Amino acid sequence: MAKKIILDCDPGHDDAVALLLAHGNPEIDLLAVTTVFGNQTLDKVTRNALAVARVAGITDVPFAAGCARPLVREIETAGAIHGESGLDGPELPEPTLALDPRHAVDLIIETLMTEEPGTVTLVPTGALTNIAMAARKEPRIVGRVREVVLMGGAYAGGNWAPKAEFNILADPEAAHIVINEPWPLTMVGLDLTHQALATPDVVERIAAVGTGPARFVVELIEFFAQAYELNQYFTAPPVHDPCAVARVIDPAAMTTRYAPLNVELTGTLTRGMTVADFRAPAPPGCTTQVAVDLDHTRFWNLVIDALQRIGG
Amino acid sequence: MAKKIILDCDPGHDDAVALLLAHGNPEIDLLAVTTVFGNQTLDKVTRNALAVARVAGITDVPFAAGCARPLVREIETAGAIHGESGLDGPELPEPTLALDPRHAVDLIIETLMTEEPGTVTLVPTGALTNIAMAARKEPRIVGRVREVVLMGGAYAGGNWAPKAEFNILADPEAAHIVINEPWPLTMVGLDLTHQALATPDVVERIAAVGTGPARFVVELIEFFAQAYELNQYFTAPPVHDPCAVARVIDPAAMTTRYAPLNVELTGTLTRGMTVADFRAPAPPGCTTQVAVDLDHTRFWNLVIDALQRIGG
Amino acid sequence: MAKKIILDCDPGHDDAVALLLAHGNPEIDLLAVTTVFGNQTLDKVTRNALAVARVAGITDVPFAAGCARPLVREIETAGAIHGESGLDGPELPEPTLALDPRHAVDLIIETLMTEEPGTVTLVPTGALTNIAMAARKEPRIVGRVREVVLMGGAYAGGNWAPKAEFNILADPEAAHIVINEPWPLTMVGLDLTHQALATPDVVERIAAVGTGPARFVVELIEFFAQAYELNQYFTAPPVHDPCAVARVIDPAAMTTRYAPLNVELTGTLTRGMTVADFRAPAPPGCTTQVAVDLDHTRFWNLVIDALQRIGG
Amino acid sequence: MAKKIILDCDPGHDDAVALLLAHGNPEIDLLAVTTVFGNQTLDKVTRNALAVARVAGITDVPFAAGCARPLVREIETAGAIHGESGLDGPELPEPTLALDPRHAVDLIIETLMTEEPGTVTLVPTGALTNIAMAARKEPRIVGRVREVVLMGGAYAGGNWAPKAEFNILADPEAAHIVINEPWPLTMVGLDLTHQALATPDVVERIAAVGTGPARFVVELIEFFAQAYELNQYFTAPPVHDPCAVARVIDPAAMTTRYAPLNVELTGTLTRGMTVADFRAPAPPGCTTQVAVDLDHTRFWNLVIDALQRIGG
Repeated sequence: MAKKIILDCDPGHDDAVALLLAHGNPEIDLLAVTTVFGNQTLDKVTRNALAVARVAGITDVPFAAGCARPLVREIETAGAIHGESGLDGPELPEPTLALDPRHAVDLIIETLMTEEPGTVTLVPTGALTNIAMAARKEPRIVGRVREVVLMGGAYAGGNWAPKAEFNILADPEAAHIVINEPWPLTMVGLDLTHQALATPDVVERIAAVGTGPARFVVELIEFFAQAYELNQYFTAPPVHDPCAVARVIDPAAMTTRYAPLNVELTGTLTRGMTVADFRAPAPPGCTTQVAVDLDHTRFWNLVIDALQRIGG
Repeated sequence: MAKKIILDCDPGHDDAVALLLAHGNPEIDLLAVTTVFGNQTLDKVTRNALAVARVAGITDVPFAAGCARPLVREIETAGAIHGESGLDGPELPEPTLALDPRHAVDLIIETLMTEEPGTVTLVPTGALTNIAMAARKEPRIVGRVREVVLMGGAYAGGNWAPKAEFNILADPEAAHIVINEPWPLTMVGLDLTHQALATPDVVERIAAVGTGPARFVVELIEFFAQAYELNQYFTAPPVHDPCAVARVIDPAAMTTRYAPLNVELTGTLTRGMTVADFRAPAPPGCTTQVAVDLDHTRFWNLVIDALQRIGG
Repeated sequence: MAKKIILDCDPGHDDAVALLLAHGNPEIDLLAVTTVFGNQTLDKVTRNALAVARVAGITDVPFAAGCARPLVREIETAGAIHGESGLDGPELPEPTLALDPRHAVDLIIETLMTEEPGTVTLVPTGALTNIAMAARKEPRIVGRVREVVLMGGAYAGGNWAPKAEFNILADPEAAHIVINEPWPLTMVGLDLTHQALATPDVVERIAAVGTGPARFVVELIEFFAQAYELNQYFTAPPVHDPCAVARVIDPAAMTTRYAPLNVELTGTLTRGMTVADFRAPAPPGCTTQVAVDLDHTRFWNLVIDALQRIGG
Repeated sequence: MAKKIILDCDPGHDDAVALLLAHGNPEIDLLAVTTVFGNQTLDKVTRNALAVARVAGITDVPFAAGCARPLVREIETAGAIHGESGLDGPELPEPTLALDPRHAVDLIIETLMTEEPGTVTLVPTGALTNIAMAARKEPRIVGRVREVVLMGGAYAGGNWAPKAEFNILADPEAAHIVINEPWPLTMVGLDLTHQALATPDVVERIAAVGTGPARFVVELIEFFAQAYELNQYFTAPPVHDPCAVARVIDPAAMTTRYAPLNVELTGTLTRGMTVADFRAPAPPGCTTQVAVDLDHTRFWNLVIDALQRIGG
């Protein structure tokens, strides 16, 4: 049976790949796509999401725009990594899909209150503002979600601060809300996604798919590779967001570890850090796990398979 | 022309008086009443609001329930001050008004997006969670609000912590959101409301109104007086919330002062403190003012006049 | 019997007046003068202290230099208020007194461990770094001090931040240490010292003393008046530091109130704030009090009397 | 030429081994031993230091007691790990060495101001209170120290909090002071010392030395092993403190990495965390390095060699 997900994203190069993976993989039933400020402003990432929908040939999934800024801190986008448009590199097609008139927060709530409880996985790959707002507006969704599998955070080193990752630092209070709710939650953080490198052989395999969407992904990765080389000292770019989708499709694509998890809100040096406590075995009933080791081949096979199925 | 307000409250003894004042005063056009956790749980304060509506004879105003807990911190209610029901003292009538099906956040947004811009004043007298959520869900409301006149905070001493007042401490992040938006905002804090004492002569004047609602208010004040004597070292209870409504009706009922205003989120001793900067004249364009001195007679005249008009 | 004090200061205009008051008043036995960075760098304030000693004719009191920077935060001096030298205005005589070779911390400790327990009052009028270091290096001094009467802090508004006073903000961790030790402690803060204004009639009375030291004080006040008018919106300058000395000489020169007192170390807006809890009567055994109301005439009489006795 | 060190410690089982290593190794010239509260109270760890001196046959090195509590936070000792005495396990001999009358802070300062600049390495293996106090009391020592090689901190996971190590958490403000001074500093943290396990073969080799001091060490390790198994989920105990001494003796016993380093003071979850920034190559002039990988054999060879040289 297909796994129902809501993808809450801020495309963003790796969000675009996540969306293609979610659409192309036959085990995923993509119920809705919601957008949130982050890699760029809400307007830009929403337009990007619709452009990627056209590239992927998505026509029957509601796309809704959500929050334009974090709960408490000021907005900060990642133009240095994703460019002026948020999806620099390939030429973006004009969107054809119309935006759903609902607010992302309401679309998330309505979907969760309509679908069978315990069947829908939330897959946030941006700031957690929409998810946090939804949990506060309709607390009953917490007990109805199957799992939250989020891309964000890190238990070791950060990327946007010494110890903080961009998505979490973008809205630490929202992350605190989401991570402290009692739903099952898996954090696919930098510890894992920095293993999801788009190495030259990977890029070659994607190019070999030979379709329009595959070319689109190659061009995304080429831009991303340059940005990561210039800004983050990477020789091949980490393609973060599809890792969270891959976890839903095939849990065995990565190992995880249960550990108490929280978000630092008041640290001078550590605000936005996701703090995992590894000092002891996770206590009984611990609902949070963190992703540890990626099966690189298995992961990229999923992405390439999805592109092949999408065709185009 | 009547002043349109949305009253966002958590009745609560003084919220009940605020609601009676807003309903009874001819200069106020009460567009909506929304509830938020605070003095008691959301269920209780919502039921209380509807019970007060019956006491006051309110039949044509939408009442909607809002957020059941703060954004980030854990919920803490004020049973020691407001009793087990949140409105201990008088016998509460069974509500007859039905709750509006909308979430308070949506009722606030829809009202503001429907009414003429610049005509509606928000009067929050509880935690600021609903208002903060509304501002983040629909940022355009910020430019459409006439003013926010809130009961909460203090520029000198607090009541729920050495420097923090209950409504702000109940959800400091929400207060931070609301106080940092660029709408005109007046903080009617403890500095002002601790002057709004229900002294014996005031209680006598209310009793002399001789109506059911007046007796209801007397019984509220009697319970409140005991709670404040036991818990807060007051010989007559401060009736906080109607001060914010009074400010809308008759700005001359109190003096105010413009000053930069913010909310402390990270202090160990001062989390939830409203920090006003009085070191220099307020800079040009300062949108925040704090209430300073109350005209005690003028204030209570408004309350008594409203009770007389309500009759019953 | 004379009251033995150690004056720990950072002259500074008002520190200079404090030193003159301590020297000239017959009820004070000035055991030692120690210096600390603050109004200016340690080198400058130490030189200033020795220059004031010459003005005052102090020859038999040990002067020792102490800490040159705060414990944790970076050093920040108050050149805008005290000028380039830390004592701008009058011409400063070349010091004749030689500095004691001991570190201020050791001079404080040795004095307290030598004098009869319970007989020596510490009067800090600058950052509390020396006193904090002494308490940590030799914890037994805490039980031997008669009282700490410090100029610093504020329970209402600040001067160097919305809620923080300069001396406390200069080294919040040191202030936290000093204020949390169980010795009797009186905080003579801005709440009190902003009443100690050198109004024109006061200046006239000082000038009328007609001595060199009196002219020196008049020139100090004239510079201070300008600095406070330009930087702090005062029409007459508050002469802070001698208030702490006056409290030791004549407790009736001001009223005080017992209250739990602490220093905020982690606030974003309130770091360095002295937090007094006035919500309830001070608990039994409370050792901290704050100064509330100054008897302006009595205070300035003490200063003028000291100048008359110093002569010169 | 021998390497001159001052060992500032809180014995403590692993401190005892560090002291034996420092005394027994011919390349170390142990100038002074100073004590600080930590694993147990100051009285106990000082007595323990003198007892270890007797075990080791140290007779000509000054031992001085230092600070009995942290700068700001309350004292917390580690009885669960080191037992009631701070050195539970072996029977402790009555000390024969008399304590130096100076305070540890002064002994450190005087030693550094007397020895040739750039020749003395500070080796703190406890809370950094003494070192921080010395740097604030006599700032000139900072430029005279050859290096600070401290045991404490962690760049990955903590032991006394999810991200904080005991020595740093014991006095975070002192650690902040020490780590932010511009002296060369190497942090030998848990990342390294959790590799310094006293595995059964190591214990066997130590036992095989066959001397009294070696038996003493075996008994220390036996107690430590039990404490670590019960409290920290270790199958063999990490012997932290001698790693810092080993680093001085033989830098090649471990690899290190330069990185900006700081201490979190305000975090709710992360107070006391040592934050290393590995996101980019260390900037030119970076003075802080962290220890990464231990050569286990080389390390234990040093310890065993020292025990053999001590004889007894």
